[in-house]
Amino acid sequence: MSGHAATPRPADGSADAASDEERLARAALTYLAEPGDSVLGALLAVCEPAAVLATIKGATWPGTMGTTSRAVLERALGRWRMRLPKLPADGGIADAGRDGIRLICPGDAEWPAALDQLGPARPYALWLRGSADLRFACSRSASVVGSRAATSYGGHVAGELSADLGERGWAVVSGGAYGIDAAAHRGALAAEGVTIAILACGVDYPYPAGHADLFAAICAQGLVVSEWPPGSRPARTRFLVRNRVIAALSCGTVIVEAGERSGALNTARHAADLGKPLMAVPGPVTSAQSAGCHRIMRELDATCVTRAAEIIELLSPLSAPDALAPGLQTPGLQPRGPQAHGAPGPDDWPRGRAVLAPSDEELRRDELDPDSARVLDALPARGGAGTSTIAVEAGVDLDTVLRCLGQLAGLGFIERCDRGWRLRRR
Amino acid sequence: MSGHAATPRPADGSADAASDEERLARAALTYLAEPGDSVLGALLAVCEPAAVLATIKGATWPGTMGTTSRAVLERALGRWRMRLPKLPADGGIADAGRDGIRLICPGDAEWPAALDQLGPARPYALWLRGSADLRFACSRSASVVGSRAATSYGGHVAGELSADLGERGWAVVSGGAYGIDAAAHRGALAAEGVTIAILACGVDYPYPAGHADLFAAICAQGLVVSEWPPGSRPARTRFLVRNRVIAALSCGTVIVEAGERSGALNTARHAADLGKPLMAVPGPVTSAQSAGCHRIMRELDATCVTRAAEIIELLSPLSAPDALAPGLQTPGLQPRGPQAHGAPGPDDWPRGRAVLAPSDEELRRDELDPDSARVLDALPARGGAGTSTIAVEAGVDLDTVLRCLGQLAGLGFIERCDRGWRLRRR
Repeated sequence: MSGHAATPRPADGSADAASDEERLARAALTYLAEPGDSVLGALLAVCEPAAVLATIKGATWPGTMGTTSRAVLERALGRWRMRLPKLPADGGIADAGRDGIRLICPGDAEWPAALDQLGPARPYALWLRGSADLRFACSRSASVVGSRAATSYGGHVAGELSADLGERGWAVVSGGAYGIDAAAHRGALAAEGVTIAILACGVDYPYPAGHADLFAAICAQGLVVSEWPPGSRPARTRFLVRNRVIAALSCGTVIVEAGERSGALNTARHAADLGKPLMAVPGPVTSAQSAGCHRIMRELDATCVTRAAEIIELLSPLSAPDALAPGLQTPGLQPRGPQAHGAPGPDDWPRGRAVLAPSDEELRRDELDPDSARVLDALPARGGAGTSTIAVEAGVDLDTVLRCLGQLAGLGFIERCDRGWRLRRR
Repeated sequence: MSGHAATPRPADGSADAASDEERLARAALTYLAEPGDSVLGALLAVCEPAAVLATIKGATWPGTMGTTSRAVLERALGRWRMRLPKLPADGGIADAGRDGIRLICPGDAEWPAALDQLGPARPYALWLRGSADLRFACSRSASVVGSRAATSYGGHVAGELSADLGERGWAVVSGGAYGIDAAAHRGALAAEGVTIAILACGVDYPYPAGHADLFAAICAQGLVVSEWPPGSRPARTRFLVRNRVIAALSCGTVIVEAGERSGALNTARHAADLGKPLMAVPGPVTSAQSAGCHRIMRELDATCVTRAAEIIELLSPLSAPDALAPGLQTPGLQPRGPQAHGAPGPDDWPRGRAVLAPSDEELRRDELDPDSARVLDALPARGGAGTSTIAVEAGVDLDTVLRCLGQLAGLGFIERCDRGWRLRRR
């Protein structure tokens, strides 16, 4: 397999289209490594994905390692190899295809060039379900995101903005969650616009369960997208990793409502770091759910927006190149269709549901280091799990999982049980 | 009187204190010319006020005229002379003093240096009623202004912000109107803070009539200020002229609520033009009364503020010089007193009173040229008035009043009657 190293691929991933071998390797890597893994990102900048996969499977590492040290590589190989037993033979591509799920890779016609702004944090590949063309849709798109604990005001505004964006031919990107995200998707659907849900779990995984119908409607009229392979379950840390893709895929990001510690502010930070337009919808200063919006206006210089026309005015200069470039539509896929079957109407928007702010436990969770947070997420909701099972699920090596489990037990998050470790009930 | 021209006064008005002769002349000029008269402003930059007054009274104009042409001067003298019959002998200073009203002039210890930023539009003098020292109070102050048609939300926020500013030793400047202005004054009073009402009528003129008690409370704990002499009635154009003083006197301006055509946006523009910090309180995008606030965030780069601490943080660097300079307090005047007698509490803030947007007539009035608007304002609310009476009241010459009356009649605003001209009833 060392032959791959002889032809290092260009760092910008500018191939004509991914080869079958690369496609299979990238599919496999989405099973083996957590998205955003900095070691894998650095390796893929200098090596063929197939070479990386071969090494994980036991081959000798080829010559080119870029800036990655041998020790860091060995450690990373350890955590990726723990997931090998769960890797489908062909990276799961055939099975996924039977479920209407396709894989896109850097270099594919449908791969949005905007993702390359993420550098080494670029997704290894994306799993897609739905009728729209991702690259085309993203070329005129806005992320409309916000708190799950939305107020009726926030839900109303998210729906109105998104419906207006949809009517004017702009795709609405969001995260598929309750609250603002759902209102944004539904608003776009109601206007027969394209909407894209970027999930932190497999595109076939119904999370939240109450959104199964929403995701079906989105697939019919837009796309459900994930970096995680089919069947993956969501996890707290995955939402944060996912947020960089929401920010990168769209031309700009609009925060509709966000409490002081909302995850939407993480998406806002990604947009600002990427140098993309960041917008916020104002609300009453007496509403905790608007505090985060006002804060990013002050601290991140987010632009105050009150209607879709203002969003489009800000983003239009950024939408042109891809939207006008020819040949970006994958044959057989509809960039935007009139099929609005089953799209919920505005009356379905959540109203009058001002959910509580994050609990103390949620706040404490936010202070965990990334590895411990992943390990905590990897524990099953019910029952216990052994140390190696948790390591596989979390995507960390055994040394790390042991350190994190000790720390989490000390903090009172978990406790030992007959089957290994379990969450402590409060 | 040509002796005045031999000693042209410095353009920056940096005398030690106004002489009795200058004081009398400036008092008289507040009777004879509308504030912001650009011809008078230009003359006062190069001539003694007493020389200007002598010329209005019939003396030959002295040599120095700066950039003012003879034709412009003659025209201006014509409109100022029309008000001579109403001028009190000593500029009304003694009568005003008996009513507890004092006059301050450029160069006086109590004259706020910030007013000199207005250049030729600087007030000729200011009439004051109340217990605070204007210069001292303005040195740590914020204007809190907004729509008369305030919502309960806007009134609540204006009151809270102003109470917090008052508690922290910041004076609250506003315009004494219904709605946001009243809530701001009352919030400051409730916190035993200093508040300053800048009126568009005489400081003894109870307008709006419902605010007589409020003005009394403001006098006891702060100041009522006007460029117009005692007894002057308010007029639509006077509010707009007054707004530049609100912006100039304070360290920065906060717009709490403003419809798309609110007069508060005029104050905002003055603050921006003066290079002073401009702030806006966000609100629901669904509220017409917050639309102006969101607009100035976008178009005038107003800073989004949600609480008093944010206002103080922005203004503190600007408050230091005057506040720390010694000898700024006029003897016998309390910079800030604990006497909060009769100050209405927060329960008096207007709530649930979302008044209508400007009527069609108000919008049409806004489109009149300045002279016609002044003439329209000069017509009595009931009954009729003769052409020359209207010219005196409006402060325009006879040619102008005739042109404007014809235009206003053509537009349907006024009609002829036995006594001259009257407003048309709709």
